[in-house]
Amino acid sequence: MPRWEPNAVGRLQNAALELFATQGYEDTTVAHIAERAGLTERSYFNHFATKRDVLFGPGTAVHEQIVTREISGSALGPLDSVVRGLQVAADEVLEELRPQSIRRRALIDATPELQERDQDKSAALTATIAKALRDRHLEPEAALLTARSAVLVQQTAMRMWTDPTEDRSLRELIPEALRSLRSVVEADPSES
Amino acid sequence: MPRWEPNAVGRLQNAALELFATQGYEDTTVAHIAERAGLTERSYFNHFATKRDVLFGPGTAVHEQIVTREISGSALGPLDSVVRGLQVAADEVLEELRPQSIRRRALIDATPELQERDQDKSAALTATIAKALRDRHLEPEAALLTARSAVLVQQTAMRMWTDPTEDRSLRELIPEALRSLRSVVEADPSES
Repeated sequence: MPRWEPNAVGRLQNAALELFATQGYEDTTVAHIAERAGLTERSYFNHFATKRDVLFGPGTAVHEQIVTREISGSALGPLDSVVRGLQVAADEVLEELRPQSIRRRALIDATPELQERDQDKSAALTATIAKALRDRHLEPEAALLTARSAVLVQQTAMRMWTDPTEDRSLRELIPEALRSLRSVVEADPSES
Repeated sequence: MPRWEPNAVGRLQNAALELFATQGYEDTTVAHIAERAGLTERSYFNHFATKRDVLFGPGTAVHEQIVTREISGSALGPLDSVVRGLQVAADEVLEELRPQSIRRRALIDATPELQERDQDKSAALTATIAKALRDRHLEPEAALLTARSAVLVQQTAMRMWTDPTEDRSLRELIPEALRSLRSVVEADPSES
């Protein structure tokens, strides 16, 4: 029987953040991370499948559940319902993780293997949102385009939020990122 | 000295498409693909690093070079310059690959490992476009958001183009996809 290990996930994630920053991602092993966290490798693998998963916590599933719940229960239009869901999930899951998220962003930007894992996570969020929109009877191609647009908004807001000089909450930055996306894609006046 | 093997890439890709479709991606090995193409495994690995790379041809590099060239030489605004680049690259590289692209789309949709490779390819195109825009002195965050928007347009246009009932060219579908993106992200009139 596994012992109960208080906050094992948080301890492993903090240990990984420290080791990746000080000795580099490549030179850090799962054994190092577990040791630094005062846990066994076996505990590590109870929570994470591989080394590259350690910075992508179980919060992801909760985040996706909240977004899905908000889309399903919303009377707003498709994109607005997703934006609202991302805002609620920002408050309930992500806002308290800001300090770790700032440290994590620098590591992801510097580590191709973590970028791939980050892409997988965005792809999974896209698929979850697209399914929730199809369940609201949006046509599949429109659901996919709306989901991809929403994930682009989320990625943009996350980049702003993980800038150490930014002091607005992720909830506030999500509509700000949507406005930036609108201004990028709006028609050049000379075209019309 | 390697023998000259006419159209080795095309032969390997066609063999892979056939084998993946008939016996499944998982059950197909590099040895099967090489044998079906009348080539050796060694030839295979001269062109592709892994099994999952076989459907992502060397056309990718040429495609990216054309997009970069068009962005650098353009007097258009940022997004319009990228859209123009994607249209030129569509004509010069992709249009003639339509039959393979339709078969490939079905395989990617059914195979998580190929979806990951497809994501990597989109991420690489995003990075290439963002760099070309930074080289035009666009601020890094604006360059990234514009590049991600453009890749979303490209992905949407590619999905339309690989629908067997679609008869417009990829060049024509790219601005069509941009119009769809605009309509997804435009402000709900009730918000203003």
